[in-house]
Amino acid sequence: MKADLLYEGKAKKVYQAAKQLGKLVLSYKDDATAFNGEKRASFAGKGHLNNEISSRIFEYLRERGIDSHFIEQLNETEQLVNKTEIIPLEVVVRNVAAGSITRRLGIEEKTNLYPPIVELYYKKDELGDPLINDEHAILLCNITPVELQEIKTKALQINNHLSELFTGLGVILADFKLEFGKIKDDIVLSDEISPDTCRLWDKETMNKLDKDVFRQGTGNIIEVYEEILHRLEAIV
Amino acid sequence: MKADLLYEGKAKKVYQAAKQLGKLVLSYKDDATAFNGEKRASFAGKGHLNNEISSRIFEYLRERGIDSHFIEQLNETEQLVNKTEIIPLEVVVRNVAAGSITRRLGIEEKTNLYPPIVELYYKKDELGDPLINDEHAILLCNITPVELQEIKTKALQINNHLSELFTGLGVILADFKLEFGKIKDDIVLSDEISPDTCRLWDKETMNKLDKDVFRQGTGNIIEVYEEILHRLEAIV
Ligand SMILES: Nc1ncnc2c1ncn2[C@@H]1O[C@H](COP(=O)(O)OP(=O)(O)O)[C@@H](O)[C@H]1O
Ligand SMILES: Nc1ncnc2c1ncn2[C@@H]1O[C@H](COP(=O)(O)OP(=O)(O)O)[C@@H](O)[C@H]1O
Ligand SMILES: [Mg+2]
Ligand SMILES: [Mg+2]
Repeated sequence: MKADLLYEGKAKKVYQAAKQLGKLVLSYKDDATAFNGEKRASFAGKGHLNNEISSRIFEYLRERGIDSHFIEQLNETEQLVNKTEIIPLEVVVRNVAAGSITRRLGIEEKTNLYPPIVELYYKKDELGDPLINDEHAILLCNITPVELQEIKTKALQINNHLSELFTGLGVILADFKLEFGKIKDDIVLSDEISPDTCRLWDKETMNKLDKDVFRQGTGNIIEVYEEILHRLEAIV
Repeated sequence: MKADLLYEGKAKKVYQAAKQLGKLVLSYKDDATAFNGEKRASFAGKGHLNNEISSRIFEYLRERGIDSHFIEQLNETEQLVNKTEIIPLEVVVRNVAAGSITRRLGIEEKTNLYPPIVELYYKKDELGDPLINDEHAILLCNITPVELQEIKTKALQINNHLSELFTGLGVILADFKLEFGKIKDDIVLSDEISPDTCRLWDKETMNKLDKDVFRQGTGNIIEVYEEILHRLEAIV
């Protein structure tokens, strides 16, 4: 199924798909990193869990009219996706304050943010993925103002669908990060949606069911990712 | 002329104007600070120079239809201004890359930015005046989206006028910072416009004629501020 390794990132390997120009195989690794790569570890089974979760979420979105790069899950750790020209933006949607926004702006964790806040970060490891504004994004990311608006609108639509999904699972979707790419002139949701890229809190206990248990050293990453997958399996 | 001291900032003292509710006396100090207050010094004559320069610039803008809090210069170091309810935003307009944007986004100093970039910083010393986006500003600064748009439009108009002014003086206006306040429902340009708040480069030599000579320890702040005042006196 897969040919050349094109790129190895922090969480996934990206392969050219064999004999299918324009398609890639994403292979989910067991590695976890945090704080811009400063904290690292490996957890057997994490790649499998994230591949399962991300595949289910992209399918859920597809059924609701949100297309993405996702074509199909291939096996335990691999997905077939359409190759996009990644826009170097991390698009973050926040429903509840957590993480960097609490430190940066002095907003208390768990503060409700309504309407949800969309933030843009310039995806550039050397610079530590800085927060940017719309004008910076247009300057740096080779996108037009209209394309940026489309990205933000899509991010908010996705937030509506995912919030509904997770609410049904007894989970609060505090925030999440998306990446988009281009295929010709189309803006296409890419990368992954998983507990690596979302903040997910159990509604009853407020326990964290996401990568924060690794960032903060407060729990077992495999257990909480399994919990998310089990709840998802009940519905999707 | 002045009654109670209301506030002492890093560069100015703010007094209630005697018997004139709704007016303030701004008294320019000789202090210079940089890096969020970490570097400090005092330069005899700096307050006088900034008061002269800022008064002339506000008068220049007034003649071009841009009202501000400025009423009149009172003496060497003091101005009479209308009291506004300051919006806790530092509104930065950049024509040429310099300072934080070069480090933050990896853009080389002196890179031309066209169209000019408007940035918003949350004016909060404890947080180090972080860069924010429009949604943060609306969340934190008690302004509506329409008011924010008005602030940005005004900042760009002021940029046009100031760029024309400084070009006539053989000076490149690389960037500058503005503050706005409200009087009832009106958005009013406030605070100061001086070499403390602008980056001003001699067009011929590219020498810095602003607070960067203090930040970087590369020149005599009094000499370069005098140079700006002398050039301004020739026109305004
Ligand atoms: N459909 C796609 N086409 C091309 N590149 C993609 C696609 N989806 C994701 N990517 C990129 O593949 C890489 C995924 O690997 P990851 O481990 O997440 O990398 P990183 O460490 O850069 O975040 C990322 O650089 C991501 O932007
Ligand atoms: N017209 C005005 N009405 C009320 N406050 C003002 C006005 N113009 C400026 N200010 C405020 O007065 C203070 C000026 O002092 P400054 O030394 O610049 O303070 P800071 O150290 O906070 O920057 C600032 O807090 C500024 O926001
Ligand atoms: Mg990634
Ligand atoms: Mg000030």
